[in-house]
Amino acid sequence: MSIGRKQWAIAEGYIPPYSHGPSPQMTSHEAMCILNAGDETAHVEVLLFYETRDPVGPYRFEVQPRRSRHLRFNNFEDPEPIPTDTPFSSVITSNVPIVVQHTRLDSRQSANALLSTIAFAGDH
Amino acid sequence: MSIGRKQWAIAEGYIPPYSHGPSPQMTSHEAMCILNAGDETAHVEVLLFYETRDPVGPYRFEVQPRRSRHLRFNNFEDPEPIPTDTPFSSVITSNVPIVVQHTRLDSRQSANALLSTIAFAGDH
Amino acid sequence: MSIGRKQWAIAEGYIPPYSHGPSPQMTSHEAMCILNAGDETAHVEVLLFYETRDPVGPYRFEVQPRRSRHLRFNNFEDPEPIPTDTPFSSVITSNVPIVVQHTRLDSRQSANALLSTIAFAGDH
Amino acid sequence: MSIGRKQWAIAEGYIPPYSHGPSPQMTSHEAMCILNAGDETAHVEVLLFYETRDPVGPYRFEVQPRRSRHLRFNNFEDPEPIPTDTPFSSVITSNVPIVVQHTRLDSRQSANALLSTIAFAGDH
Repeated sequence: MSIGRKQWAIAEGYIPPYSHGPSPQMTSHEAMCILNAGDETAHVEVLLFYETRDPVGPYRFEVQPRRSRHLRFNNFEDPEPIPTDTPFSSVITSNVPIVVQHTRLDSRQSANALLSTIAFAGDH
Repeated sequence: MSIGRKQWAIAEGYIPPYSHGPSPQMTSHEAMCILNAGDETAHVEVLLFYETRDPVGPYRFEVQPRRSRHLRFNNFEDPEPIPTDTPFSSVITSNVPIVVQHTRLDSRQSANALLSTIAFAGDH
Repeated sequence: MSIGRKQWAIAEGYIPPYSHGPSPQMTSHEAMCILNAGDETAHVEVLLFYETRDPVGPYRFEVQPRRSRHLRFNNFEDPEPIPTDTPFSSVITSNVPIVVQHTRLDSRQSANALLSTIAFAGDH
Repeated sequence: MSIGRKQWAIAEGYIPPYSHGPSPQMTSHEAMCILNAGDETAHVEVLLFYETRDPVGPYRFEVQPRRSRHLRFNNFEDPEPIPTDTPFSSVITSNVPIVVQHTRLDSRQSANALLSTIAFAGDH
């Protein structure tokens, strides 16, 4: 089974700087969910774009065949952590077709807020 | 009337483990809304992808001609229920064109939160 | 200027049955926002699909050239009002290209919740 | 690296007229996030469409090469500010491919609500 594209973009990116509620479930976070429905390991590279400095990355991840992987931007570490309260965008590339969805849990206030959208799929 | 595709994917999947408010309306849930605008019954198969084990499914559903159907992942039973508080992804295939939209109501906190996005449409 | 498609679908549809907060701004509602960026009047027809009965419509609307129009499903009247607390889907067709976005404000609880997604664009 | 399109549309637009919580982070706002992953400066023009008057704009912005830019509609000034509590739509055009995502923070009530969707990508 194969579905998806090899290049994706998420224009909106923002890690809320604080949270309410029990950790880690209700910790404010920015997440990227990746589906690799195919038979080969996906080698995924994420490049981050900022407003006032050069891109950072690639951050490298593997998604095993026939697996889902939910990555929290909050946990990105190599080459460097992502600052909170700072807008960014991301481009995701893979050697095999994947599907990417963007989700944020914002629990800065006592009630959590959620957003989600399928990322922008490139032409390949 | 015909609109849609025969293959769809939702990369994000997560059933919140608890809820606030009256059941079933305000029960935390993950839903997949399917539109079959055509003249033939849609035979829909959903395959679930997890982070650390092999895919589960297919879950099979029918959507009658010219009908809408809102499926809660919470209620999936055959071949097995979906564990709560566990990330997953889904691929939806149909014999005729359908339209798929992903929605979550998260009522873990006293105020509900909502997300929705049109699923990723495959090439066919 | 021309942008958009002539056929759109929103698989998810649901008018929450009650509300908190001042009316009409915080009234729970399901909305369809239409952009007609072109030079001709858009004659828009909306057909509603239900889970257990035949489609209802078309509901007819005009969107003037170079105009935006936000339609609340709550206010649909002809051929009949839409029942609350009842799932439905919609197909939107137009004689000229338009852009359609789906938004819900759910204020059943004391805090409002919002969702929005670009509708599914047909091939034409 | 190049990803995106040169023409985008956001059918839904609305700046909530009031807010709760600390400014500017929790101020109700409507935002458009733009990614220019390419090597050339993007010259971006935004045209706003209203329900009962002619389009306003273009509002002009630059997005430097390999940069993200988060624009709040609340801060648009030239040729004129955008009225709050007034529905609008927008068309975004660029000389080079960009990716556009639409996000709203609505903090009219004590709890914030969030929505986000990738904008509608034109054919070029």
